[in-house]
Amino acid sequence: MAERIDSPANKKIKQMESLLLRKHRQKQGLFRVEGVRLAEMAAASGWQLEFGLYTQELAKKERGSRLLQALKPLGPLYEISESLARRVAATDTPQGIFLVMRQPSWQSMELRTTGAALYVVLDGVQDPGNAGTIIRTADAIGADGVILMKGSVDIYSDKVVRASMGSIFHLPILHDMEPAALCALAKREGWQLLATALDETAQPLFAADFRPSSVIIFGNEGNGVSRELLAAAQKVYIPMYGRAESLNVGVSAAVVLYEAVRQRRFQPLPQTR
Amino acid sequence: MAERIDSPANKKIKQMESLLLRKHRQKQGLFRVEGVRLAEMAAASGWQLEFGLYTQELAKKERGSRLLQALKPLGPLYEISESLARRVAATDTPQGIFLVMRQPSWQSMELRTTGAALYVVLDGVQDPGNAGTIIRTADAIGADGVILMKGSVDIYSDKVVRASMGSIFHLPILHDMEPAALCALAKREGWQLLATALDETAQPLFAADFRPSSVIIFGNEGNGVSRELLAAAQKVYIPMYGRAESLNVGVSAAVVLYEAVRQRRFQPLPQTR
Repeated sequence: MAERIDSPANKKIKQMESLLLRKHRQKQGLFRVEGVRLAEMAAASGWQLEFGLYTQELAKKERGSRLLQALKPLGPLYEISESLARRVAATDTPQGIFLVMRQPSWQSMELRTTGAALYVVLDGVQDPGNAGTIIRTADAIGADGVILMKGSVDIYSDKVVRASMGSIFHLPILHDMEPAALCALAKREGWQLLATALDETAQPLFAADFRPSSVIIFGNEGNGVSRELLAAAQKVYIPMYGRAESLNVGVSAAVVLYEAVRQRRFQPLPQTR
Repeated sequence: MAERIDSPANKKIKQMESLLLRKHRQKQGLFRVEGVRLAEMAAASGWQLEFGLYTQELAKKERGSRLLQALKPLGPLYEISESLARRVAATDTPQGIFLVMRQPSWQSMELRTTGAALYVVLDGVQDPGNAGTIIRTADAIGADGVILMKGSVDIYSDKVVRASMGSIFHLPILHDMEPAALCALAKREGWQLLATALDETAQPLFAADFRPSSVIIFGNEGNGVSRELLAAAQKVYIPMYGRAESLNVGVSAAVVLYEAVRQRRFQPLPQTR
């Protein structure tokens, strides 16, 4: 029988609420996972669970009860009332399951690749939906990891976790990297740096060669990739033909990453590497 | 001197509010445009303006005053107070400009193309952000038009208009089309139908030939393309290699549409058409 929490003043409730804010997530090194599907993916990840909160409503459903069974070995679970669930929820229609998990601390020396590496870098991307979408796409193409530069959105915010559709559990994600550190890492590993840009020295996407080990950099929604990284990277642009002024950054990333997929997997290589 | 509206009971205020609802937009054949950038794009479109509402705050700014000058020839403008602006706004931080415009009534016989046609079809896409993003991408690649099948999101909702970043002003958009009508149209014009799908008869995206005149169909977020259209179309899938279960439909559309761009503009054609 799981312990039950009834008071909004309980420390676990307070902690769950506090983790809605970036500063508390950073200080504690933790993040929240809310909702049945995401919690299922969290359970499948095998990552450490600090604790979980669930409602009786959830436990009564077959899928909910299976989820709780899968979570039990990973950490302590506490039952809460529907009204406490609404209190700690970040969504309008909470599904009665809330987890607190430890942020994995990936180090750049742990990055491993077989064959040609492919890393996706977000340099100042601010919108949580865009960041989550790009992580999901990076997962889909089988990228080796995602790197968030300092000044980007917090990858462990509820909105990014949700928009990633669980892909944050699937691949290494480094954050708060400085431009100099990224350049040094790429140099050490022999990775080419590519950045999306709109300037006269950029080449069209389809003329770039994505077959060597690559780090592909996507910039801030308004200002693009930072000056420092642009200076170090080969610049590519996505050709446009209509009257749209720009593309959404989540869309741009998908177009570029799938061109890399196409070149690497769907065309005969003109030369062996 | 423009007329000033002070009462929330004024007919224009009531009408502006009513157009937040799909049923009123359909009955009246009108839609709303809110915000400075979108209103500038509306002004540039030359489309008929039913009327516009603006605040003194907006008129006092240089960009706002220029916008009002551009809108004046297109229809009547009325000044409203900041509190009325907050009342009619669909966004949290209204910018003091609200337009009511007539929905263009594109007919399928008006669709014109030079060279190889490319139409983008949304078949049951429900999320306004996804629909707006796809329209923006269709604009960027220079598509000939967008077709929304019956049962899709209303293209003239505030959220779709905003997410399209003004691209709804740039290309023909047909809506409420029935599957049989789309098939008949494609047959009449000699367009091939392509649909994104995940089934054993689908071919990978990069093996499909997008150079002939094409209609490319993207389906509902959960259920994909409808049975009727799937049966009539060549099926293509976007290959995935990681552990993501699916791609966002706005992302999928961009990947497919840019492969069409690449084939049409960036590779030597193996045969003349």
